[in-house]
Amino acid sequence: MVPRYTRPQMAAIWSPEERFRIWFEIEALAAEAMAQLGTIPADAARVIREKGGPRAAAIGPAEVEAIDAIERVTRHDVIAFLTFMAEGIGPEARFMHQGMTSSDVLDTCLAVQMTRAADLLLADLDALLMALKTRAYEHQFTPTIGRSHGIHAEPTTFGLKLAGYYAEFSRNRTRLAAARAEIATCAISGPVGTFASVDPRVEAHVAAKLGLAVEPVSTQVIPRDRHAAFFAALAVVASSIERLATEVRHLQRSEVREAEEFFHAGQKGSSSMPHKRNPVLSENLTGLARLVRSHVVPALENVALWHERDISHSSVERVIAPDATIGLDFALSRLTGMMEKLTVYPERMAENLESLGGVVHSQKVLLALTQAGMSREAAYAAVQAAAMATWQALGRPGARSFRDNLLAEPGVSTVMDGAALDAAMDPTRDFAHVRTIFDRVFAAE
Amino acid sequence: MVPRYTRPQMAAIWSPEERFRIWFEIEALAAEAMAQLGTIPADAARVIREKGGPRAAAIGPAEVEAIDAIERVTRHDVIAFLTFMAEGIGPEARFMHQGMTSSDVLDTCLAVQMTRAADLLLADLDALLMALKTRAYEHQFTPTIGRSHGIHAEPTTFGLKLAGYYAEFSRNRTRLAAARAEIATCAISGPVGTFASVDPRVEAHVAAKLGLAVEPVSTQVIPRDRHAAFFAALAVVASSIERLATEVRHLQRSEVREAEEFFHAGQKGSSSMPHKRNPVLSENLTGLARLVRSHVVPALENVALWHERDISHSSVERVIAPDATIGLDFALSRLTGMMEKLTVYPERMAENLESLGGVVHSQKVLLALTQAGMSREAAYAAVQAAAMATWQALGRPGARSFRDNLLAEPGVSTVMDGAALDAAMDPTRDFAHVRTIFDRVFAAE
Amino acid sequence: MVPRYTRPQMAAIWSPEERFRIWFEIEALAAEAMAQLGTIPADAARVIREKGGPRAAAIGPAEVEAIDAIERVTRHDVIAFLTFMAEGIGPEARFMHQGMTSSDVLDTCLAVQMTRAADLLLADLDALLMALKTRAYEHQFTPTIGRSHGIHAEPTTFGLKLAGYYAEFSRNRTRLAAARAEIATCAISGPVGTFASVDPRVEAHVAAKLGLAVEPVSTQVIPRDRHAAFFAALAVVASSIERLATEVRHLQRSEVREAEEFFHAGQKGSSSMPHKRNPVLSENLTGLARLVRSHVVPALENVALWHERDISHSSVERVIAPDATIGLDFALSRLTGMMEKLTVYPERMAENLESLGGVVHSQKVLLALTQAGMSREAAYAAVQAAAMATWQALGRPGARSFRDNLLAEPGVSTVMDGAALDAAMDPTRDFAHVRTIFDRVFAAE
Amino acid sequence: MVPRYTRPQMAAIWSPEERFRIWFEIEALAAEAMAQLGTIPADAARVIREKGGPRAAAIGPAEVEAIDAIERVTRHDVIAFLTFMAEGIGPEARFMHQGMTSSDVLDTCLAVQMTRAADLLLADLDALLMALKTRAYEHQFTPTIGRSHGIHAEPTTFGLKLAGYYAEFSRNRTRLAAARAEIATCAISGPVGTFASVDPRVEAHVAAKLGLAVEPVSTQVIPRDRHAAFFAALAVVASSIERLATEVRHLQRSEVREAEEFFHAGQKGSSSMPHKRNPVLSENLTGLARLVRSHVVPALENVALWHERDISHSSVERVIAPDATIGLDFALSRLTGMMEKLTVYPERMAENLESLGGVVHSQKVLLALTQAGMSREAAYAAVQAAAMATWQALGRPGARSFRDNLLAEPGVSTVMDGAALDAAMDPTRDFAHVRTIFDRVFAAE
Repeated sequence: MVPRYTRPQMAAIWSPEERFRIWFEIEALAAEAMAQLGTIPADAARVIREKGGPRAAAIGPAEVEAIDAIERVTRHDVIAFLTFMAEGIGPEARFMHQGMTSSDVLDTCLAVQMTRAADLLLADLDALLMALKTRAYEHQFTPTIGRSHGIHAEPTTFGLKLAGYYAEFSRNRTRLAAARAEIATCAISGPVGTFASVDPRVEAHVAAKLGLAVEPVSTQVIPRDRHAAFFAALAVVASSIERLATEVRHLQRSEVREAEEFFHAGQKGSSSMPHKRNPVLSENLTGLARLVRSHVVPALENVALWHERDISHSSVERVIAPDATIGLDFALSRLTGMMEKLTVYPERMAENLESLGGVVHSQKVLLALTQAGMSREAAYAAVQAAAMATWQALGRPGARSFRDNLLAEPGVSTVMDGAALDAAMDPTRDFAHVRTIFDRVFAAE
Repeated sequence: MVPRYTRPQMAAIWSPEERFRIWFEIEALAAEAMAQLGTIPADAARVIREKGGPRAAAIGPAEVEAIDAIERVTRHDVIAFLTFMAEGIGPEARFMHQGMTSSDVLDTCLAVQMTRAADLLLADLDALLMALKTRAYEHQFTPTIGRSHGIHAEPTTFGLKLAGYYAEFSRNRTRLAAARAEIATCAISGPVGTFASVDPRVEAHVAAKLGLAVEPVSTQVIPRDRHAAFFAALAVVASSIERLATEVRHLQRSEVREAEEFFHAGQKGSSSMPHKRNPVLSENLTGLARLVRSHVVPALENVALWHERDISHSSVERVIAPDATIGLDFALSRLTGMMEKLTVYPERMAENLESLGGVVHSQKVLLALTQAGMSREAAYAAVQAAAMATWQALGRPGARSFRDNLLAEPGVSTVMDGAALDAAMDPTRDFAHVRTIFDRVFAAE
Repeated sequence: MVPRYTRPQMAAIWSPEERFRIWFEIEALAAEAMAQLGTIPADAARVIREKGGPRAAAIGPAEVEAIDAIERVTRHDVIAFLTFMAEGIGPEARFMHQGMTSSDVLDTCLAVQMTRAADLLLADLDALLMALKTRAYEHQFTPTIGRSHGIHAEPTTFGLKLAGYYAEFSRNRTRLAAARAEIATCAISGPVGTFASVDPRVEAHVAAKLGLAVEPVSTQVIPRDRHAAFFAALAVVASSIERLATEVRHLQRSEVREAEEFFHAGQKGSSSMPHKRNPVLSENLTGLARLVRSHVVPALENVALWHERDISHSSVERVIAPDATIGLDFALSRLTGMMEKLTVYPERMAENLESLGGVVHSQKVLLALTQAGMSREAAYAAVQAAAMATWQALGRPGARSFRDNLLAEPGVSTVMDGAALDAAMDPTRDFAHVRTIFDRVFAAE
Repeated sequence: MVPRYTRPQMAAIWSPEERFRIWFEIEALAAEAMAQLGTIPADAARVIREKGGPRAAAIGPAEVEAIDAIERVTRHDVIAFLTFMAEGIGPEARFMHQGMTSSDVLDTCLAVQMTRAADLLLADLDALLMALKTRAYEHQFTPTIGRSHGIHAEPTTFGLKLAGYYAEFSRNRTRLAAARAEIATCAISGPVGTFASVDPRVEAHVAAKLGLAVEPVSTQVIPRDRHAAFFAALAVVASSIERLATEVRHLQRSEVREAEEFFHAGQKGSSSMPHKRNPVLSENLTGLARLVRSHVVPALENVALWHERDISHSSVERVIAPDATIGLDFALSRLTGMMEKLTVYPERMAENLESLGGVVHSQKVLLALTQAGMSREAAYAAVQAAAMATWQALGRPGARSFRDNLLAEPGVSTVMDGAALDAAMDPTRDFAHVRTIFDRVFAAE
């Protein structure tokens, strides 16, 4: 991922240095288990840990380059690493990696990295949920127009909108937690996964120490349906980010102006038009969502490896594992900040709500008319006619309100008078169940 | 989905007739709840059920066409349906759909259809799991070569391969059950989801009767992150199908011939080459997997609807909801049959296993040499040299076995003799943990 | 594709009946070429044509079912078809398909179907281009606000917007024509494409008669990179449809109301809210674009067939070839009708253009100030400050215009007076190059 | 893109330093055009070039950091760059960027970068085509078995396989050249693309100097259908890479062993199994193909920007433009090297060709039998029976050849004797048209 969209804590998980350190930890833990089982000398495990530990801890850019140089000869990354470590550990190094195969190290390391990444993302989601909840309660009863198809429908509250996003991101948290569990497995099962040369208890030991479950059956590699499910979960989270970003972009439109991303002192919206204040954060989030989503297809294509394994998944994962988690971490963090600082304009919401002459109350009138005895079809026709007349005259001199247009419909005035219409259109009814919904969404908290 | 890949039970869920019947059931249940609450007359609900029930039950192609004809005027499908029903129900029909909006009917109906579809798919998975388990135990100790990168690696058993697929499809079952829960929600919340004109208890009643959960907060529509998660789960299942199909395609290759799809009496493999017996089922499954996977991107793109809803998701779902579930149902059923009837050739597996002169035991020799005191690097070099010599002479007159080539390596013969090598290469060690793995995979059953 | 999004002319191309008719035509043409070459008796070709022609022409649903019944035994579609035809042709039928393989028939048939489909789509694009051109010239000088990031930027004209779409769909026409050429090839090259048993001149004859090019080298199948490129071209067209649909959805928003889809007599926008008039066509097009786009990934995955061919592409193409072309045909036709009948509100465009107090002229002021000697940075700061002041007071009593706020900025008033500002903000300058752009776009027509 | 898959020449195009240098070149050229037109003082353009040129040329990591620091205040990248340049240029800097908007710089810069990237990719393709042609002629008549469905079909030559790949990559070259033309346009049209404050002749001048075409109508941005078409073309190239990589992976399988990736001295195939020589390059290419393909979906999603533009495409392009071109450049180069050095085993190809007892000649026998008077159906049945008998006895003691099994079929022996069968199965007929196909493929060269 490009530096612009990278935060250091997530990037650290994916650094080559950290990768080598995790590799060593797996090898050292495996050696300790083998020593306990008597497969290798107890001293060997001790020396591997004592000499290897500091050597691994000291891996920096120069050491990475040294390992890479060995790889240019062996054309095999794990062998290069083992060779590098052996130089520091000495003869006991030959007891490292006994009966294991590269995938044991690589796939277990990836599991460690992905679970750590998932933990950061879960924390990101918690922060976002907190921000959404705070703003939702702040605006629990801030009236605003609800829109379907981009057209004014009926009143709702801005808090209700945010409660919907809260519920969606709560679901995403559940999905991400499930996805984390999917990929939190350890495999130390040797070539083609038969444990022919490594005892299953080694795997159990390493798994327990690393906080992972044991992979029930691996075919040398941890099966890639797990990873596909993980990236699919990230893609769903990304799509929810896009939905909230799209909402903000709509609210900030010049004609709507109901909310606005925070505009910093010194910020410039355009190189040519000094008047511009653009929703660039939410647009950026929209693009980041496309990026994170794009990883789901190659992750799915990675599942059907040949026979016990091929290595076609590797190049894909070298890119998408960091890119998806780093990109999503950045996006969630940006979204949280954006929502925390979002400027909300309740007066403007009220203005827009009233701007269509009252037609947004058409359903309540329709119901009242049917209850007053009109057929559904006749009531619909009358209300539609009154609404269209109101709409088309909007902003013109002498334009009649929806209420007055309704009274002008013969079918209407015979069953309801102005007072009855006013009662039917009473806006307080629109918010009667806001608390119910909030209870549903936030009660479990 | 084209008829060729459609099974009747799944197709029935998605027929227009069934769709209208579910719509009616939702409207009737809602009316009954409203009658209980006193929102509409008790008689109205009774008449709706008594007159509407038979009318809905009798919907066939002619009635579908009649409803479509009304829609060509109203350009609104739910209104067309209500108009059609009102003709049969009479004046009480005006109490149907009170305070509700189309999405209440459409989205709840989709939830009913998707949960039913998921139930069929879960049953499909159960049948597949049964077939895989049976064949896995049948071949628990059938030796075969494990292959990484398409190259012979070490021995495994055919049952172990199948146990891996069993575990993978068990995970898929868990994923699908979770996905089913995701989309099993009911929303009867009226325009923009505020319950302004419909009591939340109506929703609770309909949900309970339909076996759905209540949607905690809907924005007129049930949020599409749920559906995206559902299609993503199907895509992962499809990718696992591709993995198993790819395995069978590989095993049936002319040079491998370890297993073969059942070839029916009268079947012809090629219009031009009568000798052909092709793995057409597994190739077909590979293609079907691509199709089912292709639905995940539009499902993700459906999430970011505008404001409280737009209807862009609708055309997508009209196609992908039936296509994904019908396609996957067909694929799972075909795969189950294919695995049940798969012809397995254990002798051919044994032949292939031995065909490389014993080099597949290289790891066990490598371990024995390091334990006998050679450095890992020297042992690796010696074993690699002996293996390459064996490999390159394969099939030539006077070719030496891997064992003999090993003994010819000076570094080897000084620490191990022929008997020690034979012991190190003992193939029974390869299967020592097969039972352990089977226990892990099947124990929970 | 579901009937709702299917037009008959495109559907006819993909019917099973038509498919069989094309198969026969290929076989008959091939037989005629073989007869000319003396490979088969001249009489055989004549009988095949004379008896087979009417039999093929008469293929209807019953005959399709008869062929399918044979396929249920042979499990091979082309053999089933040949068997069916042989029943009508008699002993000479044995000279049909001589030296050919199924793919020769299937892939050449697909080429015929796809080129015909492409021709319909090209005609669809021509109709759309005509509609866009007409509306573009109609509104060449209808002022409207240009928006970047959803925020008012500078004035443009509605015709200029449409000219941009015209140019984009012109490019799409070029792409589609190129894609048509990609897939318009004929392969009659026998098993694994060697012409071992069929003379290349047979291929040349069939190709010429069908209006196709000869495939230079086929591996039994026509290589699937061609088809992938075709579906990719459709996906780009679909994305352009989405762009125009999104524009209309934005313009119809309640707060914008600059344009509106035609609303039919009798149309109902909502089952609950009689006032609704929703942009349902453009929302539908947005969804259809997602569907057509979704075919590009499986088409790309179809490229890497194994060795000389496998049949995994077949199930994919049975679905996506009709679905993509039928879906796009419907979408283009719907879009054309929508644009022809789009209701445009120039007065509302004018209102919106003026609604921000003149800040949309900020660039022209910025330029004038730098030309009057202010540094770019100082001018930017002054104009930004005046714009923000204007923006924040919008709609409040006593709010000052952008012009007056500018004059209140000390740095501004020292270099420019009110008259100079008025001159700088002269809106006629904005449209000075509209004709130039129109000439660029439409000149080549 | 991660360093592992990055080559320096392609990376240089996408460095921040180079990006700023191209920005300056665009600004300087625009200033020169404005000076010629008298819009800005001639001296200003000269000073901008003379002072700005060296400053831009000297941009290194420190200067990039300085510009980034300014951006952290302005939150606008182009303004940050202009501010940085102004510090070096002095007061005349205020004449830079006159009437232009950021997109003029950004999009034209992207066009320069993408065309340069396309040029490198075209050169990569030329090298690959050369390698494929050389190897194709080398093996023009090397017999090998053609396989459909992974099953032996009929003989072909290894050169013919390679000719097919040559033709496919030739088509890819054509596609890439077209894609290059698509994105090689320049837009200097100011806010919302109206040229309100910048003369179209400025655009023409800059375009000519940069070797780009003029964008006929831009909406502030260069329309993204162009970029989508570009990334789609790369995705098709990637899919072809996957096809060739898959072929090599198949050929190197242990049971096939017809070709092998070059294995370097010192190379190690596995950390645990010293005997392994794995097709890791072609597996890696398979994964890289998935990556490059994954960019097509976000590129398509980038098309539907809102109104005259939004900036959601930007984050996507910051990642996929370098990643797709760098990844594809690496993959093409790796593929070329792999094909140049591919070890081919003609003897092994011959062995495999003969390994099924002659059944691969079944079509030629089928044809001979029908020409000798048998009905197609009877001939098919007889040949199929003989082939199955041959196949099932393969490798067993006393197994009969296909020829002998044919003679044992009564229907066969009555119309053909052994000599006639031998003549029918003459393998030289299989290669009769190899030259014809080579002429078709390579003639135009």
